[in-house]
Amino acid sequence: MYIEKKYGCILFSEWSSIKAFGALDPGSNPGGAIMIEVLRLGHRRLRDHRISTHCGLVARAFDASKIIYSGEHDSSLLDSINNVHKKWGGSFSSRYVEKDINFIENYRGVKVHLTMYGLPIQKHIKNIRKHKKILLIVGGEKVPGEVYKLADYNIAVGHQPHSEVAALAIFLHEYFQGKELSKTFPKARLKILPHERGKNVMEVTTK
Amino acid sequence: MYIEKKYGCILFSEWSSIKAFGALDPGSNPGGAIMIEVLRLGHRRLRDHRISTHCGLVARAFDASKIIYSGEHDSSLLDSINNVHKKWGGSFSSRYVEKDINFIENYRGVKVHLTMYGLPIQKHIKNIRKHKKILLIVGGEKVPGEVYKLADYNIAVGHQPHSEVAALAIFLHEYFQGKELSKTFPKARLKILPHERGKNVMEVTTK
Repeated sequence: MYIEKKYGCILFSEWSSIKAFGALDPGSNPGGAIMIEVLRLGHRRLRDHRISTHCGLVARAFDASKIIYSGEHDSSLLDSINNVHKKWGGSFSSRYVEKDINFIENYRGVKVHLTMYGLPIQKHIKNIRKHKKILLIVGGEKVPGEVYKLADYNIAVGHQPHSEVAALAIFLHEYFQGKELSKTFPKARLKILPHERGKNVMEVTTK
Repeated sequence: MYIEKKYGCILFSEWSSIKAFGALDPGSNPGGAIMIEVLRLGHRRLRDHRISTHCGLVARAFDASKIIYSGEHDSSLLDSINNVHKKWGGSFSSRYVEKDINFIENYRGVKVHLTMYGLPIQKHIKNIRKHKKILLIVGGEKVPGEVYKLADYNIAVGHQPHSEVAALAIFLHEYFQGKELSKTFPKARLKILPHERGKNVMEVTTK
């Protein structure tokens, strides 16, 4: 059992002292109902490492099930995501796929492509929410034209240039209607106890 | 007048053909009611360029008024944000401040610090929304302890490691209750006409 004390806050790392952040855990996915897999297109090892990592962490934190990268193979990227998963729990996974167009073509489920050129999320999220198995495609620098054609929905999170990380977060937040913020992560080794003025990180040990 | 044609879509760049995405324009800020300024702490020129750029673009796209960077001075970062602003319109601005702690101390308005260690946004956004002049502080790699003390609110967008870009987007999305996605940007030279399967970018000329 490890207790971190910062900014004058004392912590208790007893399981019994932990209150779940919300009553429901969308991550537990009862009945295997929802599976959102994120496909991050065209990763470039040197230039995209941090943005692609942020995409992976956002996918995990906002209750997607998986992230798949295409572009250049980057084992350190997969390791980064995996290390967070090991420390902070949940059942998220990441992997690489070489032929992304092929992968999209063969995907069994609804394909949603996030693009600033698409239709506004605020008008279409209700329909998309009816689907429970979704491939959520997030572009890189240049998105092949086929992706627009293969997608069942091309969806815009605003029609301004901003960030694939932000678009991904807002899509998942809208899809789960905010419930993802209360998600708990089973088998976490680290847990945060929210605090108004400091850092309370708790290491959890299981017998 | 410039018309771009891609994926078989024909565009018209007449002002009269443009329909506002929503009835209200929160960016127009009637009565000067709302001003959210984003402070991005501890920018590092080489390592953070893209993430800091994404923070700036998200701040602009999600209806903040300004972004202020601290850390290393980086004129190419300010140029990147400024170029987007020139092309895509609105009244967003960006600047650099050397002494960020000093800046926070002297800020007149409510100070909200986004941190995974803070109190859950879903429980506090309603109160924060009552404030109309906000400094929204977004951390870098290491956030000085003083920031937690100087902030009026330390707010978490989930209690998992993910991305300052995502946290910023979700905060603004929650603050504006989604209205920011329908914001229009006055004096835009480029505009997107949403399309279900292609890219429609329109160049707007004014006489």
